[in-house]
Amino acid sequence: MDNSVGIVTTKHAELDVELRLESGRLLGPLTLAYETYGELNQDSSNVIMVTHAWTGDSHAAGKHNEDDRKPGWWDNMIGPGKVLDTNRYFVICSNTIGSCKGSTGPTSINLKTKRPYRLTFPVLMVRDMVRAQKLLLDHLGIKSLLAVIGGSMGAMQAIEWAIHFPEMVRAIVPIAGTGKTSPMAIALNALARQAIFNDPMWKKGNYQPEHPPADGFALARAVGHISFLSDQSMQLKFDRRFSIRDGMFDFFGKFEIERYLDYNGGNFVSQFDTNAFLYLAKALDLYDVAWNFDSLTEALNQISCPSLWFAFTSDWLYRPEQTEELVTELQRLNKTVDYHLIDSDYGHDSFLVEPEKYIPLLQDFLSKLDGNKSLDLKTK
Amino acid sequence: MDNSVGIVTTKHAELDVELRLESGRLLGPLTLAYETYGELNQDSSNVIMVTHAWTGDSHAAGKHNEDDRKPGWWDNMIGPGKVLDTNRYFVICSNTIGSCKGSTGPTSINLKTKRPYRLTFPVLMVRDMVRAQKLLLDHLGIKSLLAVIGGSMGAMQAIEWAIHFPEMVRAIVPIAGTGKTSPMAIALNALARQAIFNDPMWKKGNYQPEHPPADGFALARAVGHISFLSDQSMQLKFDRRFSIRDGMFDFFGKFEIERYLDYNGGNFVSQFDTNAFLYLAKALDLYDVAWNFDSLTEALNQISCPSLWFAFTSDWLYRPEQTEELVTELQRLNKTVDYHLIDSDYGHDSFLVEPEKYIPLLQDFLSKLDGNKSLDLKTK
Repeated sequence: MDNSVGIVTTKHAELDVELRLESGRLLGPLTLAYETYGELNQDSSNVIMVTHAWTGDSHAAGKHNEDDRKPGWWDNMIGPGKVLDTNRYFVICSNTIGSCKGSTGPTSINLKTKRPYRLTFPVLMVRDMVRAQKLLLDHLGIKSLLAVIGGSMGAMQAIEWAIHFPEMVRAIVPIAGTGKTSPMAIALNALARQAIFNDPMWKKGNYQPEHPPADGFALARAVGHISFLSDQSMQLKFDRRFSIRDGMFDFFGKFEIERYLDYNGGNFVSQFDTNAFLYLAKALDLYDVAWNFDSLTEALNQISCPSLWFAFTSDWLYRPEQTEELVTELQRLNKTVDYHLIDSDYGHDSFLVEPEKYIPLLQDFLSKLDGNKSLDLKTK
Repeated sequence: MDNSVGIVTTKHAELDVELRLESGRLLGPLTLAYETYGELNQDSSNVIMVTHAWTGDSHAAGKHNEDDRKPGWWDNMIGPGKVLDTNRYFVICSNTIGSCKGSTGPTSINLKTKRPYRLTFPVLMVRDMVRAQKLLLDHLGIKSLLAVIGGSMGAMQAIEWAIHFPEMVRAIVPIAGTGKTSPMAIALNALARQAIFNDPMWKKGNYQPEHPPADGFALARAVGHISFLSDQSMQLKFDRRFSIRDGMFDFFGKFEIERYLDYNGGNFVSQFDTNAFLYLAKALDLYDVAWNFDSLTEALNQISCPSLWFAFTSDWLYRPEQTEELVTELQRLNKTVDYHLIDSDYGHDSFLVEPEKYIPLLQDFLSKLDGNKSLDLKTK
C-alpha cells in the first residue's frame, strides 16, 4: 500500500440543525458520514471535496481493515503522489443525505416518531445534499474549498456547490455530468422504480431490512448497470457469448451479458437499501441546474470560479451534448471554463474505468489552481 | 378510405407438416395467419411479402370492420397508389410462428397433448419463422417473391429469405435491421424477461390467459418502448414536463415520460400474450445471420438478389453501424446493394414514424425492379 492513504475510519458528524429543503420540508437533526485523507493546512486552503455518485459512499480511499478486499471507490485518484495528492491536499468525502451509508436517509430513525423514516422521508434534490455538506464543513470549521470534484451525481453536486456557495469554492471539476437529467435517463429510472414497486416484498417501503424486495431491487440495479455501460463496452466484454452452462435453445438459457446483470444485481441487494436507492433516483430525476432560477443563464451566472469539465464519447446516459450545453453557456458568460471530451468505450462508467485518460488534464488544472494565489478567494 | 385496401379478412392456412427447427425439434401441424392485398397476376410475378416486427401481426393494411379505430400497422405503405401499390402488387403478410396473432405459438393447442404449449413450445429462431412462411407460399402456390420488405424483426426475416431461398426472392428491403442482435439489445430483453419472471402471476408460464402477469408484462413492454424511442424523440415529446396531477416532491409523483410508459405498458397487456412475447424476444436475441454458416461472408454470399437497406441515425437499438457492416460485406462480395442512412430523431421506431423519408427511395427501387424483366428469375 505504497501510495495508499492506508487504514481509514469513517467519521460521523451529528448536526443539531433543521435543514430547509427545496420541497419546503424540514429535515433534522442530521448525521453526516464522512472520511478525510491528508492533513488540513494552517490556512485551510488545501481542502478538496470529492462528491460521490448514486450508490457511492464516503469511503473514497484506503481500506477500513487490512484485509478488506477492495479499497475505497476512488482509491486510484486519492493518495500520496496521486492526482488528489494527500501529501498536499486535505481530501474530504461525505455520504449524501438520502443515502444509506451513514448519513441521514430513509433508513434513519426519525427522532420525532422514534421509527425509521422509510417513505415518510422527504423527497430531496441534489441541492439539498450540497446544503447538508455545507453544514458539515461549518461544523468542521472549513471555510473554503480548493475544489469540488465528482462524477455523475457527484458532478451535479460540484455544479451546485459553485452556484450556491460561490464565495467558498475556488474551482469545480464536474465529470460525466449533466445540467438536467434527460427524459431518457428519467425513463430508465422509472423502469428501476417500477421493478421495485412490482415486488410484493417491497410492501410500499415497509419491508424489513432483512427481507428486502430482492428480486425487484436486483432488476432495478440491472437497469442501472445497462445505462452505465455502452454498446461498445458490452461488445468488448461479452459480445454474444452464450453461457456455457446453458443450452442455446433452452427457454431459460442465458447469454453471458445476462448472467453478468443477474450476478451484479443480486450482489447489490445486500449492499444497499432499496428505499435509499429510490430516493436518490428521484433526486437524480429532479436534477435541473436552473431549478428556482429564471433561466439556465441566471443559474450559471452565479458561478465565479474556474471549472474543468469532462464528458465521455460513449456515455449515452448523460450525453456529452448535455455537458457541452453548460460549457457553451459558461463561455458565453465569459467564465473561465475548460472542457475535454474524452474518447472512451466504457459509457457513463468511463470516468471510473479509464481515469488515466483525464488524470493528466486534472493534474494540470489543479497545479495551476494551487499555485494561483493571486486568485481572489473571498471568504464570508 | 380512398387509397385504402378497404375491409380485409385474416385468413388461416392449416399446414399438415412437421417443420424441423434450428433447435432440432419438430413443430407441426402449423397454422399460419395471413392477409393479402391486391391481385395475384397470371405469372405470379407481382408478389411482395411484408414481414412484421416483434409484436406485429398479419393485419398490415385496411380495416377488419368499418368502425375499426385504426387500420393495419403499415397502412400508410400498402394500398392503391401507395408505395406498395395494390393496383400492381399482390402483397402478403403473415403472422410469424411463435406469435399469438393467429399463427402457431405458445398459446396454441399442442395436438399431441390437447393442451396449450405454453413453455413446452420450442425456442425458435427467425430462420424458423421464414421456413414456415415458405410453407405457406407453397400452400398458396406462390413460387417467387418480387420483394421481401420489413422493419426490425421484419428486416431479419427479409435477410433470411434472401439467404435461405435465393431462388425464390428477387429483392429484399431490410429496414432498421441488424445482422446480429447486440449484447445491449440482449441486455434490454433480459430486463423485460426478468420483469415478467419476477411477477408471481406469471407462474412459470402457466398463468390463465384471463389473469396474465400484468404488472411484469407492462414493465417488460416499457423496456421495449424505451429502446424503440430515442433521447431526441423523448425530448421532443415529453422533455422534462412533470405530470400536472402530481406534486413534484411527491414520492410517487411522475414525469410525463413515466405516465406514457405506464399507460402504454398497461394497454399492451390485453393486446398480446406474455409467453409469445418471451418467445419472440428469445428469437430476436438468438438472431445471427451467420448462425450455422462458417462466417458472415459465407452467409451473405448466398444472397443473389439486389437489396435495399435503410438505417436511421437515432436508432440505438439496432445501430446504423450494424446495417453498415452487412452492406460493406455485400459490396465486398460484389452484390447489388443500395444503402441509405435516414436522418430521423425517432429512434428504432423511425421506420414506422417517418416512412415518408424513405418511401421515395423504396419507390424508385421497386420501379426499377418491376421493369427489370431481364433480371434472371430462377424458379425451382
